[in-house]
Amino acid sequence: MTPADLPAHLLLGSCDYPEHVPQDRWAPYAAQQRALGLSYVRLAEFAWSRLEPRPGEYTWTWLDEAVETYAAQGLKVVLCTPTATPPAWLVRAHPELLAHDAQGRVREFGSRRHYDFASPVYRDHSRRITRAMAERYGQHPAVAGWQTDNEFGCHATGRSYGGASAERFPAWLAAKYGTLDALNDAWGNVFWSMEYSDWAQIKPPILTVTEPNPSHVLDYARFASGLIAEFQAEQLAILRELSPGRFLTHNFMIFETGFDHYEVAAGLDFTSWDNYPTGMLEFFAPPGMAEEVKTRFARTGHPDLVGFNHDLYRGVVGRGLWAVGTAQTPQPTPHSPQPGFWVMEQQCGPVNWAPHNPLPAPGAVALWTAQAWAHGADVVSYFRWRAATMAQEVMHSGLLRHDETPSPGHAEVAALDTAQLPLGPVPARVALLHDYESLWLYDAQPHAAGLSYWAQTVTYYAALRSLGLDVDVVHADADLSGYAVAVAPAITLVDGARAGRWAQAVAGGTALVCGPRTAFRTPGGGTWEGGQFGPLAGLVGANLLNYDSLRPGLAQGVGGSFGVYSAHTWAESYRLTGAQALATYQGGPLDGQAAVIRQDNVTVIGAHSDALIRAVLTGVLTGAGLPVTPLPDGVRLSRRAGQVLVQNWNPEPAEWNGQTLPPVSFAVQPEAPHA
Amino acid sequence: MTPADLPAHLLLGSCDYPEHVPQDRWAPYAAQQRALGLSYVRLAEFAWSRLEPRPGEYTWTWLDEAVETYAAQGLKVVLCTPTATPPAWLVRAHPELLAHDAQGRVREFGSRRHYDFASPVYRDHSRRITRAMAERYGQHPAVAGWQTDNEFGCHATGRSYGGASAERFPAWLAAKYGTLDALNDAWGNVFWSMEYSDWAQIKPPILTVTEPNPSHVLDYARFASGLIAEFQAEQLAILRELSPGRFLTHNFMIFETGFDHYEVAAGLDFTSWDNYPTGMLEFFAPPGMAEEVKTRFARTGHPDLVGFNHDLYRGVVGRGLWAVGTAQTPQPTPHSPQPGFWVMEQQCGPVNWAPHNPLPAPGAVALWTAQAWAHGADVVSYFRWRAATMAQEVMHSGLLRHDETPSPGHAEVAALDTAQLPLGPVPARVALLHDYESLWLYDAQPHAAGLSYWAQTVTYYAALRSLGLDVDVVHADADLSGYAVAVAPAITLVDGARAGRWAQAVAGGTALVCGPRTAFRTPGGGTWEGGQFGPLAGLVGANLLNYDSLRPGLAQGVGGSFGVYSAHTWAESYRLTGAQALATYQGGPLDGQAAVIRQDNVTVIGAHSDALIRAVLTGVLTGAGLPVTPLPDGVRLSRRAGQVLVQNWNPEPAEWNGQTLPPVSFAVQPEAPHA
Amino acid sequence: MTPADLPAHLLLGSCDYPEHVPQDRWAPYAAQQRALGLSYVRLAEFAWSRLEPRPGEYTWTWLDEAVETYAAQGLKVVLCTPTATPPAWLVRAHPELLAHDAQGRVREFGSRRHYDFASPVYRDHSRRITRAMAERYGQHPAVAGWQTDNEFGCHATGRSYGGASAERFPAWLAAKYGTLDALNDAWGNVFWSMEYSDWAQIKPPILTVTEPNPSHVLDYARFASGLIAEFQAEQLAILRELSPGRFLTHNFMIFETGFDHYEVAAGLDFTSWDNYPTGMLEFFAPPGMAEEVKTRFARTGHPDLVGFNHDLYRGVVGRGLWAVGTAQTPQPTPHSPQPGFWVMEQQCGPVNWAPHNPLPAPGAVALWTAQAWAHGADVVSYFRWRAATMAQEVMHSGLLRHDETPSPGHAEVAALDTAQLPLGPVPARVALLHDYESLWLYDAQPHAAGLSYWAQTVTYYAALRSLGLDVDVVHADADLSGYAVAVAPAITLVDGARAGRWAQAVAGGTALVCGPRTAFRTPGGGTWEGGQFGPLAGLVGANLLNYDSLRPGLAQGVGGSFGVYSAHTWAESYRLTGAQALATYQGGPLDGQAAVIRQDNVTVIGAHSDALIRAVLTGVLTGAGLPVTPLPDGVRLSRRAGQVLVQNWNPEPAEWNGQTLPPVSFAVQPEAPHA
Repeated sequence: MTPADLPAHLLLGSCDYPEHVPQDRWAPYAAQQRALGLSYVRLAEFAWSRLEPRPGEYTWTWLDEAVETYAAQGLKVVLCTPTATPPAWLVRAHPELLAHDAQGRVREFGSRRHYDFASPVYRDHSRRITRAMAERYGQHPAVAGWQTDNEFGCHATGRSYGGASAERFPAWLAAKYGTLDALNDAWGNVFWSMEYSDWAQIKPPILTVTEPNPSHVLDYARFASGLIAEFQAEQLAILRELSPGRFLTHNFMIFETGFDHYEVAAGLDFTSWDNYPTGMLEFFAPPGMAEEVKTRFARTGHPDLVGFNHDLYRGVVGRGLWAVGTAQTPQPTPHSPQPGFWVMEQQCGPVNWAPHNPLPAPGAVALWTAQAWAHGADVVSYFRWRAATMAQEVMHSGLLRHDETPSPGHAEVAALDTAQLPLGPVPARVALLHDYESLWLYDAQPHAAGLSYWAQTVTYYAALRSLGLDVDVVHADADLSGYAVAVAPAITLVDGARAGRWAQAVAGGTALVCGPRTAFRTPGGGTWEGGQFGPLAGLVGANLLNYDSLRPGLAQGVGGSFGVYSAHTWAESYRLTGAQALATYQGGPLDGQAAVIRQDNVTVIGAHSDALIRAVLTGVLTGAGLPVTPLPDGVRLSRRAGQVLVQNWNPEPAEWNGQTLPPVSFAVQPEAPHA
Repeated sequence: MTPADLPAHLLLGSCDYPEHVPQDRWAPYAAQQRALGLSYVRLAEFAWSRLEPRPGEYTWTWLDEAVETYAAQGLKVVLCTPTATPPAWLVRAHPELLAHDAQGRVREFGSRRHYDFASPVYRDHSRRITRAMAERYGQHPAVAGWQTDNEFGCHATGRSYGGASAERFPAWLAAKYGTLDALNDAWGNVFWSMEYSDWAQIKPPILTVTEPNPSHVLDYARFASGLIAEFQAEQLAILRELSPGRFLTHNFMIFETGFDHYEVAAGLDFTSWDNYPTGMLEFFAPPGMAEEVKTRFARTGHPDLVGFNHDLYRGVVGRGLWAVGTAQTPQPTPHSPQPGFWVMEQQCGPVNWAPHNPLPAPGAVALWTAQAWAHGADVVSYFRWRAATMAQEVMHSGLLRHDETPSPGHAEVAALDTAQLPLGPVPARVALLHDYESLWLYDAQPHAAGLSYWAQTVTYYAALRSLGLDVDVVHADADLSGYAVAVAPAITLVDGARAGRWAQAVAGGTALVCGPRTAFRTPGGGTWEGGQFGPLAGLVGANLLNYDSLRPGLAQGVGGSFGVYSAHTWAESYRLTGAQALATYQGGPLDGQAAVIRQDNVTVIGAHSDALIRAVLTGVLTGAGLPVTPLPDGVRLSRRAGQVLVQNWNPEPAEWNGQTLPPVSFAVQPEAPHA
Repeated sequence: MTPADLPAHLLLGSCDYPEHVPQDRWAPYAAQQRALGLSYVRLAEFAWSRLEPRPGEYTWTWLDEAVETYAAQGLKVVLCTPTATPPAWLVRAHPELLAHDAQGRVREFGSRRHYDFASPVYRDHSRRITRAMAERYGQHPAVAGWQTDNEFGCHATGRSYGGASAERFPAWLAAKYGTLDALNDAWGNVFWSMEYSDWAQIKPPILTVTEPNPSHVLDYARFASGLIAEFQAEQLAILRELSPGRFLTHNFMIFETGFDHYEVAAGLDFTSWDNYPTGMLEFFAPPGMAEEVKTRFARTGHPDLVGFNHDLYRGVVGRGLWAVGTAQTPQPTPHSPQPGFWVMEQQCGPVNWAPHNPLPAPGAVALWTAQAWAHGADVVSYFRWRAATMAQEVMHSGLLRHDETPSPGHAEVAALDTAQLPLGPVPARVALLHDYESLWLYDAQPHAAGLSYWAQTVTYYAALRSLGLDVDVVHADADLSGYAVAVAPAITLVDGARAGRWAQAVAGGTALVCGPRTAFRTPGGGTWEGGQFGPLAGLVGANLLNYDSLRPGLAQGVGGSFGVYSAHTWAESYRLTGAQALATYQGGPLDGQAAVIRQDNVTVIGAHSDALIRAVLTGVLTGAGLPVTPLPDGVRLSRRAGQVLVQNWNPEPAEWNGQTLPPVSFAVQPEAPHA
């Protein structure tokens, strides 16, 4: 793609499956897509059994013709490697490629994602089918780029707990640790006599009598993440070789935790993700979201859950569409965020996979599209063109209904004026730090029902959004220079190098805000011999005193100069070695102990309370010179390329800034200094 | 049984297990049963290990003596094939006969129903023990009839997901589809590359990574149902041969879904079922029944749950006791309903298998018996004579307590005047359509937590009952001539033939009312290319527009000339091609769209709302000339043989029609035109 | 230990793991422990992989040095056999020693308690490592005693449902029953044709299609309990031989049900248990405790749950520390209770294993310690000295924090004045009867969601405590002479011998109070042919009439001379054959039937109602001449050695007896007649 080809504004696309419909529908569909203003069509996802119905017998003709049909309408084609769905002939010939679930059972053929990333035989076939497709279509002029596989990790497939993965794990450990003594020491295996005397003794951390060693869990997560990275890298290498100038991406899934996205995304040109706001709300909302909130946003999804995923994936590999082929492959973590990602699958009607699957509110499809743009999306591609009339997703919607009539979402897409959605950078001055290893370790031992890494992280993200701020979600080791404020909601794993980077950022003028459990854990999965904050203790000027896990109904008062608050779920207190207490606990076993502390430009919030967090952040942001704009519930601002997107996600009108915002609506306005 | 033998009124019986007690109890029990007015005793259920303690070693003597003892008191004996409980010697010699559960695990010996219907070796033994019993007792004058096995499908035993069933499934598919192309096309296996290239690749639809293909699920349900039908047919053939003139029945279980009852009942003389109203309420109530309702009816069960099962099983094979031996075996579906079925096991005190097992209210045993009669039962047989003093059911009640004293239920049975309960037809003018394939397909993809096929179906049934109507539950392909109104609450699978039958009935003057999702799915398990209503579109004069799945707290207004209602859980709207809208949605994404539609005599209700359904049905029934009698909660009318049974299921008195009905009571009154 | 060595007051200790920290910490830790006033240190628990890192290669040096280091500070050492954690080399060499869970799956290495008690090879290794340790340390002057293994049964490890246990079960049955006829008869296997014709046919009672035979369950529980007793006896024999004069104990777990503690404790010098009050509340509270109650006592645990466990374990083997080496090993059940047990692990900060893990209230650690003393503890040993910095328990607290600073619990221990806590007898005049076989049988068939053996038992215990009584929890076959009142809350299994013992006690002047289901079941697991009360019928003067299982919201009135009450969950009524009705049911199916009955000095309470139970007990206690002191919620009295411990477990002050008791506090006062 040359600079001349670069789009100036948001482009649209859809996911289509010509193999699902009679061939006489292809040309009309392509024409209708073009008429709707779509630029891209994603093809051939999951199509392995149609491309290679029997071992080595390729049947390209239909796809050749499909590509030509869509290309004839001027649509650019995104092709997919079909490896999320190894066909029956392959699975039955090599049952050892099947994954094992967390109960140790073989996961059966009959849906998707049933393979083990570690399987050597599956790796062979993955490379083979990728090469065959790349040879066939790699230089086709209509082919703009590639999607690898589909939604790595979805349905808890990030890790296989037996079979090929289990066989390979010991060697991975041996390569990492060199000696069993080193491993036993790193894992603390002296505890409960878990010490190993032979690499072959080590299995996946499942079916243990009580919980497994969190260090074991953490290394298994790292190992499994590396397998996915390897798996994808093999496909990427082939596609780079045979499909020069095309972009390579992968469509990641909502709040997916089965691997380190920064590691797996290495080698992509940009990130894509699949955005299903209503399904996200019902199925993926972190613990602690009240049912009333879910009901309120049932038809739109929650703005901050969706926004968080946008900002997260924008930061994973952030070069954007225009950089494809013009720069070398991004390097592995840490990555600094830059604008540019795709929504590869965008909900445009009801989904079929949540406990409740409501119709989106009128206006929601347009709102989701506009939000995606405002958070940095270059392309939004709707899932799917026509609702499937067969199999698992028969109750999922599309831009066309089963009967080929346009769905309500279709009308909203048709009405979009994408010219008012120019591409360009998201001007975030706040970085929210994120790290999958911290996530794995936090969630291995949550200690408090009702909290999780995502819950704690999203709480801080939502607080920032409610104050009108744009946010980059960046890796905890990212370069923070240029950010006025960095927020580390739940980075529980901080080693010396990370602490050093943060200290450098703070020295450079970035204000740092940390949530509870920050720097509690070591890279090995234990806790520091000197206790929290380990290597960060100097920077924060304090040590951990006590932590408290609060059952529902058990509240903990917190008071400071900025008010009195009630914490729930979690509270921790500090012994000050340099910091000052901004707030102290009132009552209970923590009475009088420091709850919120500050040393210079570093603030730590020990208590879990939305209102307290918002109050502390307001002070920090204001102090850092960032404008704070408190927003009503469900009203959000997002800025990009000099524009501000004013959004009302509420099912009723909202008053804001002298305007009455209609229900489920947005407006694009020129960015004002304090809008 | 000759016409002269035919009873004029309800007869009673009990289930007795002489092998559970010392032989000196047999004669007194028989005498007491006779004194209580019982006519039948069911014997030898589960008795295999006592009839054949070692392979081929039969020990008939005890049963010979038991039969003689009961016969001596004039009791007629119902014998059972003991195949629900293959004994240990058989299981351990042939462990391959054990069933596999939905987790793929072998189901172990140690309770009951542990066999796989597909096991060839078990089939041999089933035929052998049936033949041996039939040879011994088939022409005994006291033997009135036979029960095959016990409660097919109970404890999720309708399907085995491995072993013999798994081995046989591919051949069944091959016989059905002929070619793999046909199967792949019918199942839509192009989706997710699920196409098979060898029959042997196909396994039961379990342990898939995410949900299996609903077409796969549907065909596995059909396959498993066929196995049960085969299994039973083998026993029936032997019993017909060796026990001429005796009736053959099977005791079906409450709301059982593991097979197509119309298919499995083929070859029976009449249907029996096992009626446990309080256990039904606690254990089998469809989703959506409020806890307050369960508490209100805790000691009686819910009248409409019980009534539905009566009306359902009356319609499965409906020739009745008097037809035994006088006509040829009924043919497979469709069946038209006729009066006549048994309650083979009737609760007469607390059960032991629900989360809560309350004592029945005083009067409940009598009320249940009377209701059974009014819904068409010819015989009610209480479970069990004496409470077991050993093993799994030690906490289940009987007509005698553990200490052999009469239980409260015994007193109620003694007080019954069965002469006031004459046999004869149930005069239903309303048919409620039911179809197990629709059930399987609906429940494979409910799309809305809180709804299910049974929940939707029972909602319509209860609405009809609350309006004072008698109802025949009939197969969706039944002959509807003679019915004033046919209601299809949830017949989601409608092919062309079925649509044709319905059109014919409508043309013949039957008013048709359909619930949501009607005719949404194809026989293959997909949806129509032209969308809902597929082949029924002409008859209803509309197409599906949108469907909505509503979480708790999210309501959808519906308004029409007959009032304004609030729908919950489900709402779907229509594009009219000939029908008129009787009600439209108000607010929300469906605002202004048609919610209830009518074309000529065909009405479709798209919104789930008890009150709306009742209002629409009232109009349809009235229009069809059927008298509508709105009844208070818990008050019900059931008619048979010119009598009307007025029932109060409430725990307090109820006022109705100028009468004060005592709590938990009934009265038999001559049927008046508008009673 | 000679009498001269006997302590005069409560002693303290801690659980320490020198192998978890660098050796340079050992001496400081020992000195700090001594400075804190601790007398004991428990060492080497779970240390197998450090004592024998490879087969037969012992590495004693570190433990030698650790023992010397602690001994040098005057600390007495409790050593542990490390058999709760077989190391990887042993497990991988002999995978057949792994246990199977109740789903039939092998329980994997990677935490603890993964062995099968029946494994012959594991038994060999258990004896070998025990002998090796005993030879090395058995006569070390600093070694005061031994703990076997750790928390038998914890994490549902009391029973292995496959492997070695499954293989051995048939032989155990053969030894018990002699013939299969006897077994089939005892189990009632005629029911559902479950009769066995070969011992080898019998497997553990899992994976059955519906519930297994309760007799099967009961015998499997007995069998598994016997395995644990054998396993421990082997270790005890070796320790007795090689470590003369040292005490032998085991640390039992909260409300553990996986074995008969009376059987397993045989051969110990005294019992220990592990007391985690907040974890107990969140994780082990019996069904039926309201969330509000849990919230109220979230930071202290519930006084009666903790007190019950103290009184339970005091009664299991009750000779106490001073008897070690001075008397012969106690005989198996029945045991009469005597003062003297240890709290081997006492929570001294938050635990890590409950859904919520709050900080203890200020004062709670001291309160728990004082309560333990008042209930008969001779030693309280805190878990653990320093919080672990690695592995599964990294979030569990200790007396030192991760950073080695003293935790809040440390300060409370330092402030304790143990001189005011003299040793001596607990002067209980009330015996609460307990029996694990009744527990197993009750819980195999609870019949009422919301009740369990523990729930029913603790209800009676709490009622007694709320009336100011001290209670001995004793085996149902204990010698009751000397008790003024014996309460049998849930002894559902009463055979003739037991009935005879109770009759003898009643004849001797002990008043007996029984809860519902008393004497309902036979030792075989069935119920009496003559019904409840079987062999106890004469003593209580009544037979069971009806039992009722009440769902939430369904109440049953009960009225007597002492008031009107509302029963929930359970109600049973009686036919009087000599007893008089103290209260009758009002309304419902039990209307007018006897609810509380008395014959002479024997009272039976058929209805489940806290207030009714308290009222009836008040009458019985007063009649028996015991002073009744009704206490406010959360205020409790416990007496020992002439002192009374006045406790306030509430989070706010309480008024009692003219005193204002501070929140979470205690006072030791001389016992007054009616304090």
